[in-house]
Amino acid sequence: MRDPLRVAVIGAGRIGTLHAELLAHGIAGAALAAIHDLRPAAAKAAAARLGVPAASSVDALLADPGVDAVAICSSTDTHADLIVRAAEAGKAVFCEKPVSLDLETMDRALDAVAAAGVAFQIGFNRRFDAAHASVRLAVQSGEIGTPHLVRITSRDPAPPPREYLAGSGGMFLDMSIHDFDMARYVTGSEVVEVFARGAARVDPAIAEFGDIDTALITLVHEDGCLTVIDNSRCAVYGYDQRVEAFGSGGVATSDNPLVHTGLVRKRSGTRTAELPTFFLDRYLASYRAEWEGFVCALRAGQAPPVGPEDARAPLVIGLAAGRSLHEERAVPVAEIEAAPA
Amino acid sequence: MRDPLRVAVIGAGRIGTLHAELLAHGIAGAALAAIHDLRPAAAKAAAARLGVPAASSVDALLADPGVDAVAICSSTDTHADLIVRAAEAGKAVFCEKPVSLDLETMDRALDAVAAAGVAFQIGFNRRFDAAHASVRLAVQSGEIGTPHLVRITSRDPAPPPREYLAGSGGMFLDMSIHDFDMARYVTGSEVVEVFARGAARVDPAIAEFGDIDTALITLVHEDGCLTVIDNSRCAVYGYDQRVEAFGSGGVATSDNPLVHTGLVRKRSGTRTAELPTFFLDRYLASYRAEWEGFVCALRAGQAPPVGPEDARAPLVIGLAAGRSLHEERAVPVAEIEAAPA
Amino acid sequence: MRDPLRVAVIGAGRIGTLHAELLAHGIAGAALAAIHDLRPAAAKAAAARLGVPAASSVDALLADPGVDAVAICSSTDTHADLIVRAAEAGKAVFCEKPVSLDLETMDRALDAVAAAGVAFQIGFNRRFDAAHASVRLAVQSGEIGTPHLVRITSRDPAPPPREYLAGSGGMFLDMSIHDFDMARYVTGSEVVEVFARGAARVDPAIAEFGDIDTALITLVHEDGCLTVIDNSRCAVYGYDQRVEAFGSGGVATSDNPLVHTGLVRKRSGTRTAELPTFFLDRYLASYRAEWEGFVCALRAGQAPPVGPEDARAPLVIGLAAGRSLHEERAVPVAEIEAAPA
Amino acid sequence: MRDPLRVAVIGAGRIGTLHAELLAHGIAGAALAAIHDLRPAAAKAAAARLGVPAASSVDALLADPGVDAVAICSSTDTHADLIVRAAEAGKAVFCEKPVSLDLETMDRALDAVAAAGVAFQIGFNRRFDAAHASVRLAVQSGEIGTPHLVRITSRDPAPPPREYLAGSGGMFLDMSIHDFDMARYVTGSEVVEVFARGAARVDPAIAEFGDIDTALITLVHEDGCLTVIDNSRCAVYGYDQRVEAFGSGGVATSDNPLVHTGLVRKRSGTRTAELPTFFLDRYLASYRAEWEGFVCALRAGQAPPVGPEDARAPLVIGLAAGRSLHEERAVPVAEIEAAPA
Repeated sequence: MRDPLRVAVIGAGRIGTLHAELLAHGIAGAALAAIHDLRPAAAKAAAARLGVPAASSVDALLADPGVDAVAICSSTDTHADLIVRAAEAGKAVFCEKPVSLDLETMDRALDAVAAAGVAFQIGFNRRFDAAHASVRLAVQSGEIGTPHLVRITSRDPAPPPREYLAGSGGMFLDMSIHDFDMARYVTGSEVVEVFARGAARVDPAIAEFGDIDTALITLVHEDGCLTVIDNSRCAVYGYDQRVEAFGSGGVATSDNPLVHTGLVRKRSGTRTAELPTFFLDRYLASYRAEWEGFVCALRAGQAPPVGPEDARAPLVIGLAAGRSLHEERAVPVAEIEAAPA
Repeated sequence: MRDPLRVAVIGAGRIGTLHAELLAHGIAGAALAAIHDLRPAAAKAAAARLGVPAASSVDALLADPGVDAVAICSSTDTHADLIVRAAEAGKAVFCEKPVSLDLETMDRALDAVAAAGVAFQIGFNRRFDAAHASVRLAVQSGEIGTPHLVRITSRDPAPPPREYLAGSGGMFLDMSIHDFDMARYVTGSEVVEVFARGAARVDPAIAEFGDIDTALITLVHEDGCLTVIDNSRCAVYGYDQRVEAFGSGGVATSDNPLVHTGLVRKRSGTRTAELPTFFLDRYLASYRAEWEGFVCALRAGQAPPVGPEDARAPLVIGLAAGRSLHEERAVPVAEIEAAPA
Repeated sequence: MRDPLRVAVIGAGRIGTLHAELLAHGIAGAALAAIHDLRPAAAKAAAARLGVPAASSVDALLADPGVDAVAICSSTDTHADLIVRAAEAGKAVFCEKPVSLDLETMDRALDAVAAAGVAFQIGFNRRFDAAHASVRLAVQSGEIGTPHLVRITSRDPAPPPREYLAGSGGMFLDMSIHDFDMARYVTGSEVVEVFARGAARVDPAIAEFGDIDTALITLVHEDGCLTVIDNSRCAVYGYDQRVEAFGSGGVATSDNPLVHTGLVRKRSGTRTAELPTFFLDRYLASYRAEWEGFVCALRAGQAPPVGPEDARAPLVIGLAAGRSLHEERAVPVAEIEAAPA
Repeated sequence: MRDPLRVAVIGAGRIGTLHAELLAHGIAGAALAAIHDLRPAAAKAAAARLGVPAASSVDALLADPGVDAVAICSSTDTHADLIVRAAEAGKAVFCEKPVSLDLETMDRALDAVAAAGVAFQIGFNRRFDAAHASVRLAVQSGEIGTPHLVRITSRDPAPPPREYLAGSGGMFLDMSIHDFDMARYVTGSEVVEVFARGAARVDPAIAEFGDIDTALITLVHEDGCLTVIDNSRCAVYGYDQRVEAFGSGGVATSDNPLVHTGLVRKRSGTRTAELPTFFLDRYLASYRAEWEGFVCALRAGQAPPVGPEDARAPLVIGLAAGRSLHEERAVPVAEIEAAPA
């Protein structure tokens, strides 16, 4: 592999720009090769600022022998097609989550990756957060013994705009999907059953298009571990992200950092700082680390650390969660595989 | 009401002795009047040490006009009868949890209390823990808005002896019952549905008599709040007791105290103290506070703070949890009321 | 030694009553033998409540062969004489701090102890606080290497009444003396030089009788370690008691406990509980532990853990601190020994 | 003022490169204009990477009308001359600390700044750390009342190379100088007296060239506040940076962040993460914020937030600390002004 790995970014929206900036400035062994967006002006502006060419089309970008890998950061409905095209062009693929909101499309894209034999990584960045990773390590190393109970709290500071919600696939596929991934990552065990309860508690209007904003989800893992996920679209005190694994030998916890470590004590009690309210204040370092993981794997000739099966399994769990919510019963994950819709 | 309130303790085992010592030395407005035990030697030893008479029989004790109230701390199977007899004797009743493991017996005892019009308090001491109470207060005062999600972690440091387990009524009625009470206490809302998953993960032998040692329980409250309880009989790192209420206006949390506040930082990281491993190291102050609550209510001519309905509701939830576990479905609490067994 | 050790308490004020209650109820291997006070009514009331005789005089108490040890908890000006008389009567001596505010009287009392060969312990209870003791242990065990810097923060929640202050010996001998002891305890090294700065910042009236309420004191230890003590008579947020030892191999810290472990997070930040504001809320367990240390040493035929030299050295340091403050220079401790006044 | 502010960096070493990268990528309202270094290759490499010209000489750079401000990041001995030249060229000046190790040179440079009327900021980046700033704010806003006691802990993870130490000006001028600045910043009050104790405890060889590695310093402020600073060149557990202000209305503290928020509890206790060991892991955000402060002040036509007097006063305090250490007495700061050497 040449040095550095040259990555072209497709999509110059918020998340595409973030990846482009990281690749341009901060990732050892990687370089930004080009940037493309359906809106040429957006691509040109980002390209100029970052000192790289704006690719005029995806075809041009995929035909460029100077591009080793693509980072797919466009809108979700374009992910699967772009994966197929990039795989056919022999490029390594990094794709923002989710690949797709339906299983058939997901499988078509992942089949193309497998057929082409290209490297593939899905953008579950939270795995690369140092605190969450320390929980995984405590399990994987055997330090806390066999995992029995996992608790995942994941609450956003405020609901997204209604137009975003309408096309998001619903809370389980848009938001909880990170937590389904975290449950598999932390335990190292597949999920076999899902039980979900939830409602629109924050904003009743969310119920109008059949979505919820508050949920409690029980997962049963293949190895018997039980995971609970609690989600809310609106934690007024900030972006609340916690993970805990309890096992036969101890417990490992990833707690929230605060925006700073100052405190004030007065007669009335103690006041400490707030939680971050913006996802990048919490997770910027994890976006950098996920690129380092991708680059490192490719250099070593290994599969990237978050592969096709990690893209697919959380979608299946999410579909099972949806069915559980609507049919008010525990749903075996195998049922989704047998009959996805 | 005369001053102080004179309380006789029935049962000179571990918990009876604790209550007797608290009443003898530490509760403003209360005094220990006498102590009784089926084993006269045990009663005499405790009585001598605490400077009070040993009552030769329950009848004698209940006939004593110098006794205002009884604290029932004998074995669980005697609770209901003793409540009935004490109520008929016109004594105020404090009873260690549980009143009974079956609903019919429970109702017989509580009916006697109602018929006699005596004061009654059930020993859910954890309500009187200052940290847990601060969570309740944050809900009740409206400070964190409408509660949406509650998380309760309750893990024992080590399983009790097998002979204890055999007669305990099972994990839900013996251990989770405290958490069912906590869910009602913190939210101020009744539970309408229970979904439970669990297994014998710590000690497979526990499965032999049909019990479990690890569980994850979802409760749906009348007001829509969702509570998750996670339980284990064996947290090797200590007695792990946490409560959290998340609402539309914020979150309130009760975390574990450590045995001391020292820490050591070295090249390899930071080490802090352990959690307590003994329930009295964690909850002694709450036992004192529950007596203060009892005495204070009686003096004010009010109902004690944890009344008959608080004794009964957790049992119903526990029975629903058992049914959910065995029938692998969510169980409406109303179903138990309609058909307890 | 007979079992239990029978201890008579002299002084039925706040601190004497505390010791009497601990001895009556909570110290394994010890028992309360009697209580005496110059005010017979006070002695009788305490004696009745605790179920022991009230001694009519110190002579009677010291003549009683049923008394193994005395706990001297009367006013400071009586300590030295009582130590001498108890020593001459062959009783083991526990004395509340300070033995005396002047070195000559101190030495007279300690000489009597040495001549009689009786056991002696001074009431520096903070040594028995589990968190502070963990700092000492981290030094003593070598875990944090050679100590280089020690930080001691000791701040009271509010100044004592002015009449108390007038006879207290001044802030260094009344309050900082605990910290001088802590510096010796934590480092295991004697103090050779003192530099103090301070003023009446909280209450200017304190300056009227030549005292201060705020101080910063540098101690140089024999082994080169440097200790800083900061004191205030008025920390409005509570009783602030911290100790830290920094060494070549790490750092050990004893931080403040809060009154409970609850917290509330809202949009405006996080609020945790207050510090204790009453010395017994912070240090009750240490008073129990100091008795256990005394009893344990006597049973083992060893010298009590806080002996005559520990009573004396902090007074010398305190006198040096006073001289440093008034003469505005660093004062070698040896100078005090050579010329106490 | 044009937009953005165009800043040329002088010095392409570690700290110069840091400033250049921040200006190139991350500071709203500022842009990197050019970079210069005595070693042309170093300047060219950095310039190429950051997409700006390498200035062939300081003269060329100062003559460039496209340069609004200079960031002086070269070796300390060049700072004063460069300040003079930049001021005479009418450029705004940002200078890394220290301006100089002697007062005469300092004054020559600051006189030139004053004569030219250019904006000047000294690089005391720690003022811009959010946690430390929260302590300052708690004082300045009156939230904690009148400050009585300040504690500053500042310990490096490991001593710098001996060749660095030899030319560093000694621990007080190289390392404690940040803390002298912090004491003025947090209290808002000038220092009038210094008492210092210290020794070479970590590495006896440091004593060979008259320096120390461990110190405890008492500062008396004009308003009566007392500050203690403790320093070590070697905290094996990481970069330890804490600030606390105690006042009549409360206390404000800035504690250490850990490298992540994960923890593991086992039977043997709890283990949390380490402190950062690299100054940029701790303070990177503060370097960005100090540029934002500089840019913001210039745009508003105001004096930069850390001006000439803030560059000068810590040097005077440091010289007083040195004299105190050597002459073993408290040294009034006015004495240094009267007779600097």
